[in-house]
Amino acid sequence: MTKKIKAAIVGATGYAGAELVRLLVTHPMVEISGLSSVSFEGKEICEIYPNFKKIGLPTLTDADHAIEDADVVFASLPHGLSEPIAEKCAESGALLIDLGADFRLESEEEYSEWYKKTFDKPTLHEGAVYALPELFREKIKDAKIIANPGCYPTAAALALYPALKNGFIEKSGIIIDAKSGVTGAGRSLTQTTHYPEANESISAYKVGAHRHTPEIEQTLSYAAGEKINLVFVPHLLPVNRGIEETIYARLATDKSIDEIRQAYVDFYIDEQFVRIEPSGVSAQIRNVTRSNYCDISVHVDKRTNTLILCSCIDNMVKGAAGQAIQNMNIYFGFEEDCGIDMLPAGF
Amino acid sequence: MTKKIKAAIVGATGYAGAELVRLLVTHPMVEISGLSSVSFEGKEICEIYPNFKKIGLPTLTDADHAIEDADVVFASLPHGLSEPIAEKCAESGALLIDLGADFRLESEEEYSEWYKKTFDKPTLHEGAVYALPELFREKIKDAKIIANPGCYPTAAALALYPALKNGFIEKSGIIIDAKSGVTGAGRSLTQTTHYPEANESISAYKVGAHRHTPEIEQTLSYAAGEKINLVFVPHLLPVNRGIEETIYARLATDKSIDEIRQAYVDFYIDEQFVRIEPSGVSAQIRNVTRSNYCDISVHVDKRTNTLILCSCIDNMVKGAAGQAIQNMNIYFGFEEDCGIDMLPAGF
Amino acid sequence: MTKKIKAAIVGATGYAGAELVRLLVTHPMVEISGLSSVSFEGKEICEIYPNFKKIGLPTLTDADHAIEDADVVFASLPHGLSEPIAEKCAESGALLIDLGADFRLESEEEYSEWYKKTFDKPTLHEGAVYALPELFREKIKDAKIIANPGCYPTAAALALYPALKNGFIEKSGIIIDAKSGVTGAGRSLTQTTHYPEANESISAYKVGAHRHTPEIEQTLSYAAGEKINLVFVPHLLPVNRGIEETIYARLATDKSIDEIRQAYVDFYIDEQFVRIEPSGVSAQIRNVTRSNYCDISVHVDKRTNTLILCSCIDNMVKGAAGQAIQNMNIYFGFEEDCGIDMLPAGF
Amino acid sequence: MTKKIKAAIVGATGYAGAELVRLLVTHPMVEISGLSSVSFEGKEICEIYPNFKKIGLPTLTDADHAIEDADVVFASLPHGLSEPIAEKCAESGALLIDLGADFRLESEEEYSEWYKKTFDKPTLHEGAVYALPELFREKIKDAKIIANPGCYPTAAALALYPALKNGFIEKSGIIIDAKSGVTGAGRSLTQTTHYPEANESISAYKVGAHRHTPEIEQTLSYAAGEKINLVFVPHLLPVNRGIEETIYARLATDKSIDEIRQAYVDFYIDEQFVRIEPSGVSAQIRNVTRSNYCDISVHVDKRTNTLILCSCIDNMVKGAAGQAIQNMNIYFGFEEDCGIDMLPAGF
Repeated sequence: MTKKIKAAIVGATGYAGAELVRLLVTHPMVEISGLSSVSFEGKEICEIYPNFKKIGLPTLTDADHAIEDADVVFASLPHGLSEPIAEKCAESGALLIDLGADFRLESEEEYSEWYKKTFDKPTLHEGAVYALPELFREKIKDAKIIANPGCYPTAAALALYPALKNGFIEKSGIIIDAKSGVTGAGRSLTQTTHYPEANESISAYKVGAHRHTPEIEQTLSYAAGEKINLVFVPHLLPVNRGIEETIYARLATDKSIDEIRQAYVDFYIDEQFVRIEPSGVSAQIRNVTRSNYCDISVHVDKRTNTLILCSCIDNMVKGAAGQAIQNMNIYFGFEEDCGIDMLPAGF
Repeated sequence: MTKKIKAAIVGATGYAGAELVRLLVTHPMVEISGLSSVSFEGKEICEIYPNFKKIGLPTLTDADHAIEDADVVFASLPHGLSEPIAEKCAESGALLIDLGADFRLESEEEYSEWYKKTFDKPTLHEGAVYALPELFREKIKDAKIIANPGCYPTAAALALYPALKNGFIEKSGIIIDAKSGVTGAGRSLTQTTHYPEANESISAYKVGAHRHTPEIEQTLSYAAGEKINLVFVPHLLPVNRGIEETIYARLATDKSIDEIRQAYVDFYIDEQFVRIEPSGVSAQIRNVTRSNYCDISVHVDKRTNTLILCSCIDNMVKGAAGQAIQNMNIYFGFEEDCGIDMLPAGF
Repeated sequence: MTKKIKAAIVGATGYAGAELVRLLVTHPMVEISGLSSVSFEGKEICEIYPNFKKIGLPTLTDADHAIEDADVVFASLPHGLSEPIAEKCAESGALLIDLGADFRLESEEEYSEWYKKTFDKPTLHEGAVYALPELFREKIKDAKIIANPGCYPTAAALALYPALKNGFIEKSGIIIDAKSGVTGAGRSLTQTTHYPEANESISAYKVGAHRHTPEIEQTLSYAAGEKINLVFVPHLLPVNRGIEETIYARLATDKSIDEIRQAYVDFYIDEQFVRIEPSGVSAQIRNVTRSNYCDISVHVDKRTNTLILCSCIDNMVKGAAGQAIQNMNIYFGFEEDCGIDMLPAGF
Repeated sequence: MTKKIKAAIVGATGYAGAELVRLLVTHPMVEISGLSSVSFEGKEICEIYPNFKKIGLPTLTDADHAIEDADVVFASLPHGLSEPIAEKCAESGALLIDLGADFRLESEEEYSEWYKKTFDKPTLHEGAVYALPELFREKIKDAKIIANPGCYPTAAALALYPALKNGFIEKSGIIIDAKSGVTGAGRSLTQTTHYPEANESISAYKVGAHRHTPEIEQTLSYAAGEKINLVFVPHLLPVNRGIEETIYARLATDKSIDEIRQAYVDFYIDEQFVRIEPSGVSAQIRNVTRSNYCDISVHVDKRTNTLILCSCIDNMVKGAAGQAIQNMNIYFGFEEDCGIDMLPAGF
């Protein structure tokens, strides 16, 4: 057997960090060599996540100790904190897979506008690759830093890319109505995510102002060959996991719904993790939960000449930890589905 | 005290029927005089709805017996079955409040296109009023038949009417992304509403093909002064009750968000049951559940020049039984909130 | 019409306080004259509970201002804070209805053992009545202070009282396995009530150590004529509202299940708010939610000679605010169901 | 690599069958060679379970075709249908792992009493092993038929076995209050499992009459060395997956809670899939969901001298498909956690 690589997780006690732990423990090519946490340094992770009882895992340390000897470092941190980790990885030769936003936007101007921060180490950003495997697989293999896409942008880009690339839709007027499970808001306590106030409800938040907007636009602008500005409205959905995005765009083609749907099937024909629904079926969260799949359904409203796409992922897997591992697999030459081939349960 | 009027419910064992029972039992001006059910004729309603134990209620009969002596008849039936009830009410002098779709569309052509059925008794339809009280209160007082609006159309029309009436938005390109609790699908069993398959998921259904589409368009065309065609996509939301609609339209005004919001506040200033959210707050289901309120929030996405409206109701109350009682109150001259003034709980 | 009484709520922004607001707004004999909140003094309650938008309500003040001029004061405070309120009410002549635990236990020793606090004003306690209306109605009319029962104790006492009073069961070995919705844990944020950690789970808490234990035992000891010690284990149930208690006791009678069940029916025959399920049906939360009802089912396991009782209430209504209003109605001579006659919805 | 064994699933479209498919697809030592379904013969399983889209799986056939060439046959059928499958497996030499109840009870008398059916082929039953791996691992290796334990009995037996074996508790008076997620009721539609009636509620069912009772008693009688009769009351819990059982028994020892808890730790020290909670922590469903773990917490109520155990499993994994695969692994000499080593997510 090939020697296992050593993986460290910086920010291991947030939800994305814990999901990385969960998936890496059973990854056949990986050994978890370090876990860091600012809030819980010195504790065992099973004290915070009792689901990890009786699993041998490293004690939580600070980031410096956690990444020592690591071949790959996963960073799952609030934005603005990844550059120093990236520098240390550059020194040690470890690959950084950043689950945060710091290396996702190519334009420092856009980053500054949405995140109110500058690039402190611009040269680091030159080696960063926006790592949505189904669209940018080749670049990932040569990345110096892997910028793991956000959850909403993953579902949006996989759904809209083929339509824009093929010229099926107009480039303006795209609307993304997104719904995310509550884990998307993280482990920190808020009134909004207090059970009695999130349960049996739904509401939009950060209307037209969510930081994933420029990230979605960056990928789609690349597909369209020009700057895309779109409407993105996320909603807090009373489920633990999963994102559903219903996307609206004006048709710019005479192709039939069957032809458009077939173009989607063809576009993703070799992609294990992207599945196009049969005609007439809508993508739904339960068919992807706790898996690395993205399910997409393609609809046309003839009365209004509108293309409607439904795109579903698990926000913690394909939208975070699973995709990060997929990127690691690609970079290190493992089977792409290694450790993340679990099927969704459907119930 | 004024003499109570007698109310009959035809189709009392569907969810809307049971909600009518629940609300009418404590209505101070109403006595329930008859309950009918095809499926459970001869049984007590508390055998089907054990929440109605130890409440004195009429035994379930057929429709003819149920409506005898009634001053008002609520019909909650599958579409296509209300005309015969309407005829009997016309004969007996009872007011019919139809919670179904049969009298909602003025155009027989549209009714035929969407419901695959004709108007068998066209003259009956002439006396029918589409009874959304906040928009058409005056007509309701003189109605011969009250066509109680559908749940989705209620939330959509209350949200979009002021914008169209005031010319704030373009008349084409309106998109309604709607999410409804599972009671909206009724009491009948389906795989889609089986707990393990509805829970922890969401999915669109009847994309661009839901029968509430022409009903929404009818009201909005009236507001706009021309035929409106829009995109309507409903989703099955894993909650028991409540509808949230996020609505997108291109702005056709230079007014600021504050001015637009204020126009909404003014439009509904005298309406007890319609509330406009403060600036920056999104309407959410939990603030209206089990009440007759409709909460609306007004947002503008400047980057794309888009008006975004969020509109929330309880589908069983303002979207069905509560609004039907509101209409009854208007018609009979009771206080408009009589029996339906309960506040939402928020949790 | 009789002049309305003035009601103040001290601690109006906790869940029980907000539920009192909700129910008192539509109570025909009550005017809300004051609302207090330590955390939100000076704010409008609709800033914290947007479900109360567009309802005219007093601004949140401190307790002293809130209770000025009040005929009845509802206190919904953490334990240990009610005695000073009680003193002020004694001075002003207002009735205190205390939703907290401070006046529930007659024995200061037990209070000290479980709450780690003494009675600072023992004379106040002499005028306090443990106000479970179905069991102690007559005493309530003459109360100086109404100690409103806890949620778990209400469901437990109503279920077990007839069995103990009639000698149907052995006095030792009673086990209460209780499940409560998350509102029972209140509005304060905790990891346990964070949506992703409460949802799709259940767990016991405070096993054998919950402070409602001595309160349950006090009422049942009274029924049994001797000191009862029992096992009480609460669980956090992933619903917003409702308590279900499944209660186990060894039979001490030869009566048949039908005879025992009939004795329950007879015991509560004149009680509007207590309902005994038909034979073979289990009480369930959905049949009482958002109402003041308590549903009880009676079962016998012949193989083990065990009486099994299931008892359900809404923890916020019959378990808190609704029962407090029921007590107010009794004290002031209003109809006992005045303002709290809403039926449960069942869905 | 070792040659893969061929596995067939009879009754592949029930929830347990679908869960077997899900887990076996990624089992490194297994190839799924056949899937049968009475209801959906001739269809692809992804038509019923769209979560299985784009996964190569055999078309659904009748049972005879499905089990051809199989080395192991998993049967997930309504009770009373497994004997004919067992006969065919005996002829073909395939191992039968029966997820149903037909081979679980050793006593035909008990089987007849609870299932209203006799053993048609008594000799088949002689080779059947009740296969709870942590308790009966050695017998499994030599089984002719593997009777996979029921979900409730798995959680109950793992929790109570050490206490009975060690004489910590009295043998009479044991009470099991069990709560199960709705998948436990299967895929078939019922009013009880209709989303709006299962959601936001809980209720006991089959009080003292559930068919898992004799199965639990059989294992515990074996541990106790005498016939155990106990009270078992299951509840329908509004979650998709998971069982929590809170178990009450009178202590028959002077050992401290710490000593008892340590005895549990020691009893399961070498068992990967059974975990004892730290002192003061209650087992909860979310820590085992979608994994093969069983978490047990040990509590003592000194006031009443009662041992209280909380035991949690995922009903579809450790309670059905996962344990069936664990048994297959043991029988065929694979690593015991092969294909079922996924960790629970905790959220």
